[in-house]
Amino acid sequence: MAENKQLGKQSIRFANPPFIRGAASVAGTKEADGPYGKYFDEIEQDPMAGGDSWEDAEGRLQERAAELAVKNAGCKTEDMRYIVAGDLLGQLMASSFGLMKLKRPLFGIYGACSTMGESLAVASIITEGGFADNVLAITSSHFASAEKQFRFPLGYANQRNKSATWTVTGSGAVVVSAAGNAQAEGTGHKLPDKVPAEKNKVHITGITTGKIVDYGVKDSMNMGACMAPAAADAIVQHFMDFGQSPGQYDKIITGDLGLVGKDILIDITRAKGYDISENYMDCGIEVYGEEQNVQSGGSGCGCSAIMFAGYILKMLESGEWKRVLFVPTGALLSQVSFNEGNSVPGIAHAVLLERRN
Amino acid sequence: MAENKQLGKQSIRFANPPFIRGAASVAGTKEADGPYGKYFDEIEQDPMAGGDSWEDAEGRLQERAAELAVKNAGCKTEDMRYIVAGDLLGQLMASSFGLMKLKRPLFGIYGACSTMGESLAVASIITEGGFADNVLAITSSHFASAEKQFRFPLGYANQRNKSATWTVTGSGAVVVSAAGNAQAEGTGHKLPDKVPAEKNKVHITGITTGKIVDYGVKDSMNMGACMAPAAADAIVQHFMDFGQSPGQYDKIITGDLGLVGKDILIDITRAKGYDISENYMDCGIEVYGEEQNVQSGGSGCGCSAIMFAGYILKMLESGEWKRVLFVPTGALLSQVSFNEGNSVPGIAHAVLLERRN
Repeated sequence: MAENKQLGKQSIRFANPPFIRGAASVAGTKEADGPYGKYFDEIEQDPMAGGDSWEDAEGRLQERAAELAVKNAGCKTEDMRYIVAGDLLGQLMASSFGLMKLKRPLFGIYGACSTMGESLAVASIITEGGFADNVLAITSSHFASAEKQFRFPLGYANQRNKSATWTVTGSGAVVVSAAGNAQAEGTGHKLPDKVPAEKNKVHITGITTGKIVDYGVKDSMNMGACMAPAAADAIVQHFMDFGQSPGQYDKIITGDLGLVGKDILIDITRAKGYDISENYMDCGIEVYGEEQNVQSGGSGCGCSAIMFAGYILKMLESGEWKRVLFVPTGALLSQVSFNEGNSVPGIAHAVLLERRN
Repeated sequence: MAENKQLGKQSIRFANPPFIRGAASVAGTKEADGPYGKYFDEIEQDPMAGGDSWEDAEGRLQERAAELAVKNAGCKTEDMRYIVAGDLLGQLMASSFGLMKLKRPLFGIYGACSTMGESLAVASIITEGGFADNVLAITSSHFASAEKQFRFPLGYANQRNKSATWTVTGSGAVVVSAAGNAQAEGTGHKLPDKVPAEKNKVHITGITTGKIVDYGVKDSMNMGACMAPAAADAIVQHFMDFGQSPGQYDKIITGDLGLVGKDILIDITRAKGYDISENYMDCGIEVYGEEQNVQSGGSGCGCSAIMFAGYILKMLESGEWKRVLFVPTGALLSQVSFNEGNSVPGIAHAVLLERRN
């Protein structure tokens, strides 16, 4: 069993690929005003989401995305054997407070803005290994809580570099289910007939888990440059492990490299013999319109999460795309590491998604 | 396959339990002066561990524990298919910088001081599911980086409550390997004959993954009270899921409840019909001697990690103990959540360890 799953140096090809039973995206108003606004399941008009603080607001976005994803999957909260969750805040406060009410076993994870890729990967491992029938994978970010965590108080109204990105306010949640799973667990109740069957659903057929890659870039206002080498590393390794070339994917989609990171990624992968420019897309570049004045694009765990749950998944489910490599990208910095003059290493987690029937 | 692994509401019983091929503990001088000093594999005399900052120091402890655990397992770094790592610092900076040089696929995780339980659980799922032959599970904490992260600058020389705990300086690393695995992966080199065989090793036979439990305690200087309800929840659920009673374990060992948390845990579990007082032990109470002036005991991810890799594992490997429930406990707070007046919820991850041959 072990042998046929492990593929190449850093990948897994799932023998019985888990599928995505349901998903949900909850986004803020700025994201709603962008070109993908119509794809998001729910728009929160209040920047505080009815909460008392920015952190509380972000937690509430997660709570609602979680509830909606579970509902969209035709499940109950108790059907989720595990939650795999993370966010950008120190000690994962948005996930901790936002998901508490769900009362489910929780694995907290952190991969900076690559966290959605990590949560999908871990959820796939858990379900495919037979350890759960349904796992909720979820992440979030919030513009204001992230500015407070990593940059300056909003009241300063700091100017932003051309290479800077705008943290997405939103949460994306995905219910990953074991192949052939029609029965809900937990309460043991039979899922209703209206539950979407595995047929026509999107399968997670493989993953390529990233290593930390550090090119020594120290500019936290240019995270695209920090993350692009890690994205290139994971993407090239994915091609090598799976014996594939860029043309075999409808889309290769990174999380939040932005305009600067995009160019670097395309250059590095080309230098390694793979030209991804034809079918490349970046959630950070897409999520906001040019007129929205966000410099290099969107960022944050929530960026790739809402674009995945809101748009990418729908493109796959509709059959518009058949095969997508989804590669959320993370910049590993903290306020402390930045202030201490450290570089900003990157990490990226690639997830292979296929519409197979 | 799915059915026989999932056990009860929150547990897994592993059909082919993974085993611990090797481990290592690296501790500071205060920990070396405690009653378990002789068990730790390496003592770091320099509080800065040769680094430039407290965060750097903690990362260096992780790097050395990782290298030593891999060596003790008779492996090379390349044999580790994944690293599952975390620490207490915002955005996991000790793990990110400390483990970068290992250049291995990384899942960053966060469960506060329960992180060692979470890393062992995830590593077990990955290996037992056939997704890897060897996984490195590792966590750390450092007194000075934790005080800086969560409390006050050391220079203030703040007085400490009786209920306060002292963050352990140290890192514990464990190589979790798939059952029946004699061949190293990665480089594909055959492990040398001197590698300890699976025989006489400790197996991870099950896990019970914790939920977030919040009794509304807001005192970050009394983390034992914050975490005890979560520990009780996980331990009682474990007994229920496995159909076991406390007397069937040689030891039931929590992470860092300390003296205050211990009493609360014993009271809550007793009220739920399970008396664990006879064979209960807490790493936080044990790690320092009474004369070391640490109030309620030790804490931090490093506390349960060095006690596990340094002492608990050796007691199991020697056959002194045959069956241990290891339950690292975490308090989910950040500097921000505390300052905003939030409660401190807890989480605990139980890992069942057995010496079976």
